Amino acid sequence: MRQELKEISVATDGQRLFEITDSVRAFTKSSGITTGLLTAYCRHTSASLVIQENADTDVQRDLIAFFRRLVPDGDPLFVHTMEGADDMPAHVKTALTQTSLSIPIVDGRLALGTWQGIFLFEHRQQPHIRKIVLHVFGA
Amino acid sequence: MRQELKEISVATDGQRLFEITDSVRAFTKSSGITTGLLTAYCRHTSASLVIQENADTDVQRDLIAFFRRLVPDGDPLFVHTMEGADDMPAHVKTALTQTSLSIPIVDGRLALGTWQGIFLFEHRQQPHIRKIVLHVFGA
Amino acid sequence: MRQELKEISVATDGQRLFEITDSVRAFTKSSGITTGLLTAYCRHTSASLVIQENADTDVQRDLIAFFRRLVPDGDPLFVHTMEGADDMPAHVKTALTQTSLSIPIVDGRLALGTWQGIFLFEHRQQPHIRKIVLHVFGA
Repeated sequence: MRQELKEISVATDGQRLFEITDSVRAFTKSSGITTGLLTAYCRHTSASLVIQENADTDVQRDLIAFFRRLVPDGDPLFVHTMEGADDMPAHVKTALTQTSLSIPIVDGRLALGTWQGIFLFEHRQQPHIRKIVLHVFGA
Repeated sequence: MRQELKEISVATDGQRLFEITDSVRAFTKSSGITTGLLTAYCRHTSASLVIQENADTDVQRDLIAFFRRLVPDGDPLFVHTMEGADDMPAHVKTALTQTSLSIPIVDGRLALGTWQGIFLFEHRQQPHIRKIVLHVFGA
Repeated sequence: MRQELKEISVATDGQRLFEITDSVRAFTKSSGITTGLLTAYCRHTSASLVIQENADTDVQRDLIAFFRRLVPDGDPLFVHTMEGADDMPAHVKTALTQTSLSIPIVDGRLALGTWQGIFLFEHRQQPHIRKIVLHVFGA
């Protein structure tokens, strides 16, 4: 049993999904591990991780639209507004999605389903550099 | 430290919860691992995993009712409708719940609380065969 | 590769967040593991785990306010009411947040971002003792 770590950066430019499947796959492959577990961890509280369909981009559009309606920027419910109208909604959207994801490795490949992609979900409007730590272990 | 993998299938027939606790327990026991970590991973974007109370079935009924009200089938917000009125809501419900779950193994048993069960949450109306990958490691 | 387990208890007194970052850090440090993975697992279905900002406490206030509005205690949608008006909402809030969280360990430290704290999110009004199992492995 061995393990490896890597931190990847994603430059974001608004409230949408950024696919990181290729980066995670490349790291998994380079580790040479054929059976094991990959964990992705997002080091932020206003961006998060989701596994979603990566075929029709309308799915991403609709997912974003739903979260915007559920937790609108500038919602008067919130008192934590000093960092912007989209900051507290970003924290809520992060709580509603994932900060960590674990995916088994089978025969040297991530056990992603046919339509599954791994995405960083950016919840802030301004550009950010987001850090995701990847950890893999196995044999 | 050793590890084992298994894929299980769940035949679903509508928008509800299907308990998989027994299958996950049996796999954990058969591995012979007494201290470790079990990860369950759902290979779909329109079905997900949740840990919920498995005592009163009204809890499952209410959970389903809540998610149906929050993300109604046929919601006019969505443009991704070609796969059916329940498809995009299924993607949203998946994002709001879990695709992967990790549970420690203590003294040869999953560290589930007294009332906790592991469930596949089917979000589509039509029957599906859902695949869940189980990974266990430890000693 | 080694592993360690520990169960911690959190005494709660109402619907709010209880930070457990220090306990998780102390366990990680005492394990002596410098590269690895920490998993926290909540053994309940009416309390859950979230990673959130631990700088401005208004973030916690707003997060609680949002979940109370989204899943109000006493919501007439629910039929599972015998354990109290806040019980079924607690199950829903648990499904919407996390039961397990995994965090890589880098250079002997949890890979938490600058503003990230680990919290138990109590969804019941009455006092409870909540159990969280911590599992760490690595080298």
